[in-house]
Amino acid sequence: MKNNVGLFLTKRAHLNPDLEGFIDVASGRRITFAEWNAGANRAAALLRARGVAKGDRVALLMLNCPEFAECFFGLAKIGAVVVPLNIRLVADELAYILNDSGATVLIYGEEFAAAVADLEARGAAGTRVKHWIHVAAPDGGAPRADFADDYDELRAEASDAEPAVGAEEDDLLYIMYTSGTTGLPKGVVHTHNSAIWACITITTTSEMRYRDRYLLMLPAYHVGALTPLTGNVYRAVTSVVMRSFDPLRAWELIDQEKITVALAVPAMLVFMDQVPDTDRFDTSQLRWIMSGGAPVPVTMIEAFAKRGIEVHEVYGLTEVCGPACLINPEDALTHAGSTGKAFFHTEVRVVDEDGNDVPPDTPGEVVVSGKHVMKEYWNQPEATAEALRDGWLHTGDVAVADAEGFVYIRDRTKDMIISGGENIYPAEIENVILSHPKVRDVAVIGQPSDKWGEVPLAVVVPADDTLAADDVMGHCVGKLARFKLPKAVEFIDEVPRNPTGKILKRLLRDRFPGPAAD
Amino acid sequence: MKNNVGLFLTKRAHLNPDLEGFIDVASGRRITFAEWNAGANRAAALLRARGVAKGDRVALLMLNCPEFAECFFGLAKIGAVVVPLNIRLVADELAYILNDSGATVLIYGEEFAAAVADLEARGAAGTRVKHWIHVAAPDGGAPRADFADDYDELRAEASDAEPAVGAEEDDLLYIMYTSGTTGLPKGVVHTHNSAIWACITITTTSEMRYRDRYLLMLPAYHVGALTPLTGNVYRAVTSVVMRSFDPLRAWELIDQEKITVALAVPAMLVFMDQVPDTDRFDTSQLRWIMSGGAPVPVTMIEAFAKRGIEVHEVYGLTEVCGPACLINPEDALTHAGSTGKAFFHTEVRVVDEDGNDVPPDTPGEVVVSGKHVMKEYWNQPEATAEALRDGWLHTGDVAVADAEGFVYIRDRTKDMIISGGENIYPAEIENVILSHPKVRDVAVIGQPSDKWGEVPLAVVVPADDTLAADDVMGHCVGKLARFKLPKAVEFIDEVPRNPTGKILKRLLRDRFPGPAAD
Repeated sequence: MKNNVGLFLTKRAHLNPDLEGFIDVASGRRITFAEWNAGANRAAALLRARGVAKGDRVALLMLNCPEFAECFFGLAKIGAVVVPLNIRLVADELAYILNDSGATVLIYGEEFAAAVADLEARGAAGTRVKHWIHVAAPDGGAPRADFADDYDELRAEASDAEPAVGAEEDDLLYIMYTSGTTGLPKGVVHTHNSAIWACITITTTSEMRYRDRYLLMLPAYHVGALTPLTGNVYRAVTSVVMRSFDPLRAWELIDQEKITVALAVPAMLVFMDQVPDTDRFDTSQLRWIMSGGAPVPVTMIEAFAKRGIEVHEVYGLTEVCGPACLINPEDALTHAGSTGKAFFHTEVRVVDEDGNDVPPDTPGEVVVSGKHVMKEYWNQPEATAEALRDGWLHTGDVAVADAEGFVYIRDRTKDMIISGGENIYPAEIENVILSHPKVRDVAVIGQPSDKWGEVPLAVVVPADDTLAADDVMGHCVGKLARFKLPKAVEFIDEVPRNPTGKILKRLLRDRFPGPAAD
Repeated sequence: MKNNVGLFLTKRAHLNPDLEGFIDVASGRRITFAEWNAGANRAAALLRARGVAKGDRVALLMLNCPEFAECFFGLAKIGAVVVPLNIRLVADELAYILNDSGATVLIYGEEFAAAVADLEARGAAGTRVKHWIHVAAPDGGAPRADFADDYDELRAEASDAEPAVGAEEDDLLYIMYTSGTTGLPKGVVHTHNSAIWACITITTTSEMRYRDRYLLMLPAYHVGALTPLTGNVYRAVTSVVMRSFDPLRAWELIDQEKITVALAVPAMLVFMDQVPDTDRFDTSQLRWIMSGGAPVPVTMIEAFAKRGIEVHEVYGLTEVCGPACLINPEDALTHAGSTGKAFFHTEVRVVDEDGNDVPPDTPGEVVVSGKHVMKEYWNQPEATAEALRDGWLHTGDVAVADAEGFVYIRDRTKDMIISGGENIYPAEIENVILSHPKVRDVAVIGQPSDKWGEVPLAVVVPADDTLAADDVMGHCVGKLARFKLPKAVEFIDEVPRNPTGKILKRLLRDRFPGPAAD
């Protein structure tokens, strides 16, 4: 068969037509692979009928709904290029991405009707969007704007026959804009081939099994959900999909849906761990939760181990379609804090500024190669050349690897604090502070210091109001080298994070600009 | 990483160094992936030191021993081309294959020293073999011939460092000679890429799991063992390897080695099922036995189901590096007798003589496409062009597919009996006769008939001496259409089979030439 991601669904529907493929928790819809594939074919047909051809960009602004899932595979079949949009963006940010990608069609969920109406009222805000397609919410009823077509109406009229396949392995599959915690978002371009190799290496490397039941809690516009969604079709795995994360609901679903495996960012683990009375849920089917997006606190690995649930730390990036490093199940506790070694079809090295391997146990930048690395940043040849050098993706993340090859992610280069000439990795300090029972959440940032250059500031969300700054500082003494000790503690109500759990440190630096007292 | 099958072992040794990779039942050696990889590196080094370079052919004539396994991966790393030799061949047949492949090195097990000495004494029998390397048997002690080097001595002196990688995905990996039940053997050429895609699609399609324990009973010179051996490295699965099949020993190993999955030809299932008192073995870890190479008798699927063991019928060929069709676990009993549908990255069609799809439930020839199809027959452009047409491998096997796509293999085209204008598939008759409790084994062949063209003859191995020809014929009445009923029954002591369980019908036709009485 042609190497086209859309045909993954065609093939799976042929092999396992009656197996549940997509369970939409919000609406209660239980969609078999055959039904999902028929829906994808309808999506392909209705978009072709609107003039969408190979290479055209089609933007999706939706929660994790079945319509997103069928549009993604339908567009892949006909060779159109999916532009999944971050649902937290405001109208101007959306306009930027629609403009940059050149999307001509926007399919949007009812939940985002106001932002879309704003865009449309401004003459599409300078973008090339010509078709607007409105997807009703399960409990919706908001009126559809005059300028928009109704997805369900178009879908009902469309054929569910397999469309002519419009793309092969070197053609573009999607452009995914990075979350843009700094600067303007860049469009990461993946081909069918890079997405396919991501699925292949996840299937080969992870402890996933035929007919697993996979709880998907991350937003589908992010690689942390889109790659599993694709990989689950690839491996005959049922995706149980939440439209938005809720920690109590996650436990309920693990029980009710007999979830066997899941993926969560570390912040989700923290919130799940704080849910009271979870003993009432049957979690005996759940073998593991893969966790990444930020270093996983060792306390969380241990807390879930006590529940009989393995946490497998994974290290991934949008630029490599997900997979970079994954810890083996049998190493997860003995090497807690490590994200393991490179995936099977992947190479990971830790290098100095000249691109040479650093010795074991020495911090350096992580670089990744493999067939699942992105093709380019869309329309940004300079940024592409900076990121992809000699076939290696330069991640901007700092790690050390030990002599056996176990990789420990320290932090993002740009989050590193340099204090008195020493490198300090905020994630390490965050891990220590999070192990204090009265700490609910924490972020560590650098503040300018006349004496040291920078010093660490701990921004803490207390679990109760008896927690004092001295408690936090005292907790760190003996657990961290002196130069790593936070010099001050600030309390806040909530650590700002993007929807995939990444701490928005820029916002914290704006709020606590310093300088620090010496 | 480069797409080189040898690097599968390098990578697996990096990811799971201490996991048992290869358990050699005969010698009791338990070899971790790290040890196996070090051995492969030594094999690569000792052969490079003997002048073996990229593209050179190296023949292996061995039982399923660790030396075979390390030479295979070592040769793959340096880009030499492996020629695995059928261990049942006599000196003249070996000479033909050595000559056809142009092998310059022969590594042989002590068990085959006599045939090799015969070859060498005749000036290498016209072949290009310059180096002879003798591998001692675990309980051996036969003197090594003067002309041969000792493998263990060379190995001890060789470096275990990773060699420079000598091949990438489009380079040749091995030439495997088909069993040659008719005509001269042809060398099926597989590249690294075709072997890699065989591993990928098996991992994605089958119910194999990370760290399974796989009982390997077929000979490693055959695709039915060489592809699993490679796929097990790929998926972190332990290979428990028998040097030759023994049905009682198989049950013992399933118990002692906590075997989780296995592969067997149908004849092996029959012999295993006939072992008495198997209740004493703990088979609770064994989830399934994949079975193929010939149609699997439904009686065997049912007999193993009663033991709590699923039998998954697979359809494979040397020319596609193994995988063509596989039944889903959940379909194995409901569709017993079917080999399921095409593997995930594979397409299978049933076609007429013009290559057009036949309607459902209509017999036709099986054709296969996928990235795991062979590159060519070695030095046989005409045979290659005949087999590979428009990207489809023409198998010479007859099957029907139902409307849902379930494939039922009838038989090999060349084994088909045409009687009174009707096609008769011997395997169907064999299945019925095998369900008689007093039948141990059976083969059905065609005999010439003046009246009908051909008629079926049943050649039966009785389970006890009370079985009469009339019992066999009477058992078929009502279970088979009249024209399919055997016209006669002959009794023999053993059905001649090749080591992979394929019935050698040519020998039976020679012994029972007919013509049949009308």
